Amino acid sequence: MENCIFCKILKKEIPAHFIYEGNNVSAFLDINPLNKGHVLVIPNEHYADVFNIKTEILQELIGKSQEIAKKMKEVLGADGVNLFNASGEAAEQSVPHFHLHIVPRWSGDGVNMNDWWQSKTKKISDEELQDLAIKLKI
Amino acid sequence: MENCIFCKILKKEIPAHFIYEGNNVSAFLDINPLNKGHVLVIPNEHYADVFNIKTEILQELIGKSQEIAKKMKEVLGADGVNLFNASGEAAEQSVPHFHLHIVPRWSGDGVNMNDWWQSKTKKISDEELQDLAIKLKI
Repeated sequence: MENCIFCKILKKEIPAHFIYEGNNVSAFLDINPLNKGHVLVIPNEHYADVFNIKTEILQELIGKSQEIAKKMKEVLGADGVNLFNASGEAAEQSVPHFHLHIVPRWSGDGVNMNDWWQSKTKKISDEELQDLAIKLKI
Repeated sequence: MENCIFCKILKKEIPAHFIYEGNNVSAFLDINPLNKGHVLVIPNEHYADVFNIKTEILQELIGKSQEIAKKMKEVLGADGVNLFNASGEAAEQSVPHFHLHIVPRWSGDGVNMNDWWQSKTKKISDEELQDLAIKLKI
């Protein structure tokens, strides 16, 4: 969709650190991470939210998300993960292209899920993003 | 699993307001809701988290969650929803049986996802829960 930042990322008009590029689903690092390794998983077709994404695509997307979560444990030594989706502006959705957040968690990391609405995300360098993208590739 | 509160709910040893009871997946109202209509979707088999839930079951679960989200819009007039999963204690998981939260959202409802870690959930009566369970049944 025109003017959709995630569609532009998929068309490579805006750079991103991809960790997965499939036929229906893609995943890349959030540049405003709640924790280092924070990933966004999106459908390649533009669906606004959980209300209109095709069920089979959503199911493929959750399968890939599980793989990514496992990888976070394996290669980043994460102790856990949070999966999060906001559907609708009322639910704090910012980019109107369905995306599932996967946030790696470590004991005592002090992350709280409300942080990104208050823009308390972590600073991360492009080098770190590149390094993480290599590690998390599935 | 013994001593798992969600397994006990599934075995009807602890009461709950179910909105869906399938062969592999069930859904019931959270008695400590972030918003009225807050639902938990769980696998009937005991899987601790996203790391070990069977992929096909997770896919069935997300499909049902989408149905429930649509129903929240339809019958509760929700403007949006949040989907949320915590996998692992480090990610603030409390009950170690996989569960996906679906929180209906309304513009300006003031909910923040960190609330339930700080126990700022809403008070809800059993009558209200019963009424919501009837409305949300899929």
